[in-house]
This record gives sequence, structure tokens and C-alpha cells, in this order.
Amino acid sequence: MYAGIDLGGTNIAVGLVEDGRIICKDSIKTNSGRGADEIIADMAEMIKTLCEKCGKSCDDIESIGIGAPGTPDKENGIVSNVHNITDEKLEFRKELGAIFNKPVFIENDARCAALGEMTSGAAKGYKNAIMVTLGTGVGGGIIIDGKLQCGCNYGGGEIGHMTVAMDGEPCKCGERGCYEQYASATALVRIAKREIEKNKDNDMYKKMQEGAEVDGRFIFGYAHENNPLALSILDEYTRNVGVGIVNLVNIFQPEIIVVGGGVSAQGDFLLNPIREYVRKHAFTKNLPIAEIKAAELGNDAGIIGAAMLKE
Amino acid sequence: MYAGIDLGGTNIAVGLVEDGRIICKDSIKTNSGRGADEIIADMAEMIKTLCEKCGKSCDDIESIGIGAPGTPDKENGIVSNVHNITDEKLEFRKELGAIFNKPVFIENDARCAALGEMTSGAAKGYKNAIMVTLGTGVGGGIIIDGKLQCGCNYGGGEIGHMTVAMDGEPCKCGERGCYEQYASATALVRIAKREIEKNKDNDMYKKMQEGAEVDGRFIFGYAHENNPLALSILDEYTRNVGVGIVNLVNIFQPEIIVVGGGVSAQGDFLLNPIREYVRKHAFTKNLPIAEIKAAELGNDAGIIGAAMLKE
Repeated sequence: MYAGIDLGGTNIAVGLVEDGRIICKDSIKTNSGRGADEIIADMAEMIKTLCEKCGKSCDDIESIGIGAPGTPDKENGIVSNVHNITDEKLEFRKELGAIFNKPVFIENDARCAALGEMTSGAAKGYKNAIMVTLGTGVGGGIIIDGKLQCGCNYGGGEIGHMTVAMDGEPCKCGERGCYEQYASATALVRIAKREIEKNKDNDMYKKMQEGAEVDGRFIFGYAHENNPLALSILDEYTRNVGVGIVNLVNIFQPEIIVVGGGVSAQGDFLLNPIREYVRKHAFTKNLPIAEIKAAELGNDAGIIGAAMLKE
Repeated sequence: MYAGIDLGGTNIAVGLVEDGRIICKDSIKTNSGRGADEIIADMAEMIKTLCEKCGKSCDDIESIGIGAPGTPDKENGIVSNVHNITDEKLEFRKELGAIFNKPVFIENDARCAALGEMTSGAAKGYKNAIMVTLGTGVGGGIIIDGKLQCGCNYGGGEIGHMTVAMDGEPCKCGERGCYEQYASATALVRIAKREIEKNKDNDMYKKMQEGAEVDGRFIFGYAHENNPLALSILDEYTRNVGVGIVNLVNIFQPEIIVVGGGVSAQGDFLLNPIREYVRKHAFTKNLPIAEIKAAELGNDAGIIGAAMLKE
């Protein structure tokens, strides 16, 4: 049995994992802005409570893994620069290790999700998979030969910050033309707002003026009704997503690309145009090409992936 | 002892390799347009002659490797789509295997060069290296954990066809904005011609009008003399090269990036501005970052890498 923790800006989700499946889980609000000690104490408490609930002893836990945003110092099990959660360093290995006397591993949250999807989700059974998470930003998890790739400084896999448009949209990382400025859910909303403003006779404009929030649900809702403006917004967006996926295909030729994030709940409605774009634009048109599938585990991917972490 | 063959559009280079070093080598003109049988017969003849020259028997050869452009079918040891060399399939394993009764392996030429540089060149001692070859196009070789990465269909590593500028320069692959349209030696010449045309008072324009060929040598020659136009051309070019290297750093965080191709002979004069660009623009500014070095083996890299090929 393994404990997996997904530390997010909104929730802390904890689960006990056996054979790649969550047997018991719980989540609490992160309550950003508090001290690292409090956050870690809450995590420890949740693990203990979950063990009780499942009729297990904390001694049955083989290791504890934490997926978190920020900069992971994997050698020492410390996460820093998680500014939207706490200004302090999160000394996971030291503190959780002292409480449970078990190995403690940390990893970037997007990579944990990839590991989770490979363990028991959309990429199960594949050894060469890339997960692309389309959320507020774009996260990445790259698995080669069954092994999560982190690069020599644990900073690899930042596919959201691959330049796809030199001198393009400014990114919050300080650069321009980063993939996440074109393919994130945030980018979808930006594109939509720009296009809606240009089409004041469309119902989407009226609804926006009436105060409707322009988000994924709003855009996809209209698209499902064949609203031409919504469809053209999605044309641009899926093409943008496709450009980055083609890059990953040309570079890696993975067996599968798993698309995660809220928009992936749209399934084939989102993925079919992306699949078509990739088939048409990948460099190797005459070779078999990566499957493109929606993530299957949702938020559980992060817990399962964290639980699977090893030295 | 291993035999390595580098099949290029201009030359066929063959070498015998021991302990990662070429002990004997030779090259002949490719004479494009002839039949596959003739090309392979020439290769076999060269291997035999080299063995004699070194006082070795062909039986001392452990395996034969061939680096070639085109589409490698590694399962069967066949290379096809080498249109600038021959319209026929090159059945290396079948034909060279029949002559020498040794294992025959094939690989993409850019990947062989990467393997060669890792075996005894700029990336020696590194396990995570990317080679970027700036030639007529841009080739790539990706090594992770000491292993050449080819992807599930042997088509991976096409970093020259990573989109860095959506809707940008048209590429001969049919897409737009491919990295090689910005970072290849061909792109350098295109940028130079465009800029020289705009600066008719510069000496470079006069020389071009007098019939001087605008190539790397011409551009770097003026740059070494501090010609401001040549320097501004190189500013644009090194920035372009840097954009793609930043992408590779953000995705892989390799230990080292080896820059090959004719322009890499410029050494630090080319690489220093690229290093500066990468340090400034990589996503992980606070972490140690890949070394950037010039390739060391030149054309020998292809022979050595081919000789190192394994199952």
C-alpha cells in the first residue's frame, strides 16, 4: 500500500493506493497562505485517518509520494517556490519521514498525473507516453521506456513553454509565443473573447454582455449547438493544440499522447479535430503515429502517480 | 572491430572502428542516381579494401552499421525514400549480410552523428545529450540514459520540423515555421541575402553584386571583421538557433547540447551568443542548465556512430 498526495492551489487530495488503484481517499481545502508546517501536519493527519478508515495500519504504507507545483528538490524531498500555496519551503521528506518513518518522494504535479495515467489510466500498458495537460497553463509529463523523464536538473517536461510562435503572445514566464499561450484553457477563453467581440450579432456576444462567464463550458455549449462562431473558435484552438502535439510527435514519436485538463472531458468532440490535424501535419505521414486519448483518471491521476513515485 | 558507413548525397564514407576510434577510413563519390546494388557493392568493396589495408580479416568485423538519410526500416535493415541518392530500396541487411555474414544495422544519419559524438566526441561521458546538426536542414539526435531515442516508429528526433513560428516560413516538408527554416545553414543564407538586399551601401552587397557566393564562409568572414550588417545577420540567426535550443532544454533538460554542421566550425564565435540566449530565455533560470558545445568529430561522427549501432 502506498500513500499519494496531490497538493494543489485549491485542494489537498490524499489517497491510499494498492495495485495502482485508490482504495480510500479524501481531500481538504488547501487554505493557501498558511505555513508549511500546518499544511504538512494536515497531510499526515489525513493519511492516519484514511488508514483507520480502511482498517489498515500506517505501518502498511510502503512509501509516501507528493505531487506539487513549484520547484522540486528531489534529492532532499523539498518543494519550494509554491507561491500560490505558501511562501515557505515544504520539507516533505524530513517532516513526513519523521512522522511515518517511511520513504518520502516528491515530484512535479503534471508529471505525477502522467505517471498515474500510465499506471491505471489512458496510457496503461504503454511504455512511451506523453501527457499534455491543458489547464490554466499547459503541463507535461514524458514517459520513455516506462520511466518518467525529468532531465538532469528535474526541470524537464516543460512543454507548455516550448516556443511555437516566435514573437507571439506574451507568456507569464517572460517569454513570447509559448505553447501554453495557445493551447491552455486560458488561451481558449482569450481566443473566444477576442472573436466574440468581433461578432456582435452572435448570441454568444449577447450572453457575454448579459454577464455570462466565457469559459470552456460556455464555448463548448455553443459549439455543441453548432453555433458557427463557437465552432470557428474551436477550430483555431484545436489547431493550436495540434501544433504542439505535432512537435511532440516529431520529436518523440511516442506510442500515445494523453490529453488531460478540464477540456479533455469533451472527449472526441475536442480530440477528433486534433487527431485529424496531427495526422495531416506530422512529419512522418507514412508511418504509424501516436494514439491521442483523453485522460481517464481526472484528479485521481495525481494521487495515483504520486503514490507510484520511487527513488 | 566494427565497420561504420556514412551514406551521404555526395560521398560514401566507410571506416573501421576500434574502441570508438577510426583506425582506417576511405570515401568515394556517391554518384547519385545509380542502382542500390551498385552502391552496396561499392560499400562491400571498400570494407574489404580497408580490412586489407589494416592487416585485418573481414572476419574480425563484429557488425556493420550504416547511417543514411531516408526512412529506415530497422526491423529489416532496409532504407527507402533516399530520393537524392537512389530511387530503389537499399537492402543493407540482406545484401551486406550475405557478403560478410555479420549483423547489419541501419540508422538515420543525424542520429548516427549524435551517437558518434557521444562515443568519442563532444558528448563523451554524457548520458543525456542532444545533437543539433545545422546543415542544409536541421537534424537531430536525442540520447537519454545513454540510449539513442528513435520513437515507436523509428521516426523520432525530427527536431528540424518542430514548429517554432506558426504560419511562418514555408518548409519543404509542406508545413510552415519549421525550426530548420530558421536555424539551418540554408536559413542563414536566406536571412543574409534578404538583409544584404536592404543594405546596398554595405560592402557585402557590392561583393554579392560582383558574384561572390553568399554562404556561411562569406557571412562569417565579414562578421569576423566586425561588419555591422554581418553581425546583425548573425544576431538574428543565433537568436533563431537559440529559440529551438531553449525548446529542447525546456522539454529535455539534457546535460549537453552538441551543435554540429558546417557552421559549428565557428566554435565560440557562433556558440557564445547562443549560450547567452539560452541562459536568458530557458524556463528554468534558477537551475543548472545544459552545456552547449560544438561537435568535435566532423564527418567522422557519422562513421563512428554507425559502427556503434546495435540491435
